[in-house]
Amino acid sequence: MADPLFQRIALLGIGLIGSSLAHVIRRENLAGHVAIYTRSAETLAKAEQLGLGDSYHARPADAAADADLVIFCAPLGANASLAEAIGASLKSGACITDVGSCKGSVIRDIGPHLPEGVSLVPAHPVAGTEHSGPESGFAELFDGRWCILTPAPETDEDAVSIVTEFWCRAGSDVEIMDADHHDRVLAITSHLPHLIAYTIVDTASELERDLRKEVVKFSAGGFRDFTRIAASDPTMWRDVFLNNREAVLDILGRFTEDLTALQRAIRRGDGDALHDAFTRTRKIRRGVIDAKQA
Amino acid sequence: MADPLFQRIALLGIGLIGSSLAHVIRRENLAGHVAIYTRSAETLAKAEQLGLGDSYHARPADAAADADLVIFCAPLGANASLAEAIGASLKSGACITDVGSCKGSVIRDIGPHLPEGVSLVPAHPVAGTEHSGPESGFAELFDGRWCILTPAPETDEDAVSIVTEFWCRAGSDVEIMDADHHDRVLAITSHLPHLIAYTIVDTASELERDLRKEVVKFSAGGFRDFTRIAASDPTMWRDVFLNNREAVLDILGRFTEDLTALQRAIRRGDGDALHDAFTRTRKIRRGVIDAKQA
Repeated sequence: MADPLFQRIALLGIGLIGSSLAHVIRRENLAGHVAIYTRSAETLAKAEQLGLGDSYHARPADAAADADLVIFCAPLGANASLAEAIGASLKSGACITDVGSCKGSVIRDIGPHLPEGVSLVPAHPVAGTEHSGPESGFAELFDGRWCILTPAPETDEDAVSIVTEFWCRAGSDVEIMDADHHDRVLAITSHLPHLIAYTIVDTASELERDLRKEVVKFSAGGFRDFTRIAASDPTMWRDVFLNNREAVLDILGRFTEDLTALQRAIRRGDGDALHDAFTRTRKIRRGVIDAKQA
Repeated sequence: MADPLFQRIALLGIGLIGSSLAHVIRRENLAGHVAIYTRSAETLAKAEQLGLGDSYHARPADAAADADLVIFCAPLGANASLAEAIGASLKSGACITDVGSCKGSVIRDIGPHLPEGVSLVPAHPVAGTEHSGPESGFAELFDGRWCILTPAPETDEDAVSIVTEFWCRAGSDVEIMDADHHDRVLAITSHLPHLIAYTIVDTASELERDLRKEVVKFSAGGFRDFTRIAASDPTMWRDVFLNNREAVLDILGRFTEDLTALQRAIRRGDGDALHDAFTRTRKIRRGVIDAKQA
């Protein structure tokens, strides 16, 4: 058997993404040793019971010590304190990466705590399900999905290369872009859709009881798709919105203007305006199908 | 072979739903003869080429004459003129039904044109795909899906029974409710989700070209689901919004209030408000799963 890609990988956080990484690291022989830290003792015990790693740690510094690759897999809001906690324990030459849905805040929160000789290569695997927790992970989660890396221009090239290889072997297609640009793109493709899905499901949850029961019963007409998105992890998504505030508020402003225009067309009975808008959108769907993302 | 349920069924309109009905009518032996009318000569020729019916008519009255069951399958905006065109040709005892997504407007537009002795049993099969046209239909479209009937209280019971049997044999679970109530429920479960999906995809289509390309490329994060919904037939959906205006504007108002509250929480960095909202929505998803609609 070939040598593993890394001697020791530390996973900080063991939810859906962390546990999926644990599975794929084993399948692909990406690490000689997987060290797991997570904040909750109960979750850590669950991870051990599931046999997701080789060692289990109640302190992040113990997991990160001696690791060649440290992967931040906790909600974004935990990054700063985790980075502060592990900074002094990191070995020279270590690579730091993460799996967060926003990238500007990762650089802001983790970067200042890293010592000389340690490289930060932020990563966002564009993959997920509506399930959470260490039992929800599976090795195939990243298969054929994008993983976007957003290293700063001055980042060590070898570090970028090995993190790229890690994600390719996990099954992903890797793309490199600027962190701010990433945050604008994902605000549209992911953050706004989640915010809207959460909102419409919340609106439905406030209805009178009888009506709400029927909304659930007849959800197949479109609402059902929104309930799936709106079942995603609340802590993760709270942190996404707090950490990509400007890009989300910008696209939300545009969305609200467009929705108001359609609302006005409905109120005035302007069928042409509605038909025009509903026709434009078909072109985007065609693009999604052509890009093999459908 | 048993006698068919109806001697002659007329399909007025032959898009996704009409052509799916043609397939299931044949599979289940629901009619001795299927007469097809549709407004466009080109679509009518396509239906004939596909062999969807037994006779093809350029005038709706010719299709409806002698039919025991007439099914309106055109966009809602065509109902009034179609009903006016066929009213005088209907035979006594005929049943009239439809497949529209709003039910109040169906009663308003079709009812006044029906002669004595003809029954109207409005129907809404809660089923569909993002594809349109006579080639997009398939017999299984209605399998295990709800079909909601909204007959007026004074409607002939035999007419309600036979339309119920028709939809059951097409594979649907039939539910009977008041038309106004239907329109409120569907405004939430279907019409608002479609309006929102159209809006967000339209918002994306207005982005600068580079950003738009990447939105398509990375659409798997949530946006993709919206593009599928927003690829639905523009004419059908224009007519839904024009014909269920009040219920849609009401729920849209509530949605906008809720979205504004979340927007405010994001701007102020109020993580608790976000987390609370994102937690409430999981209960609705649980309901959808328990109702076996997921």
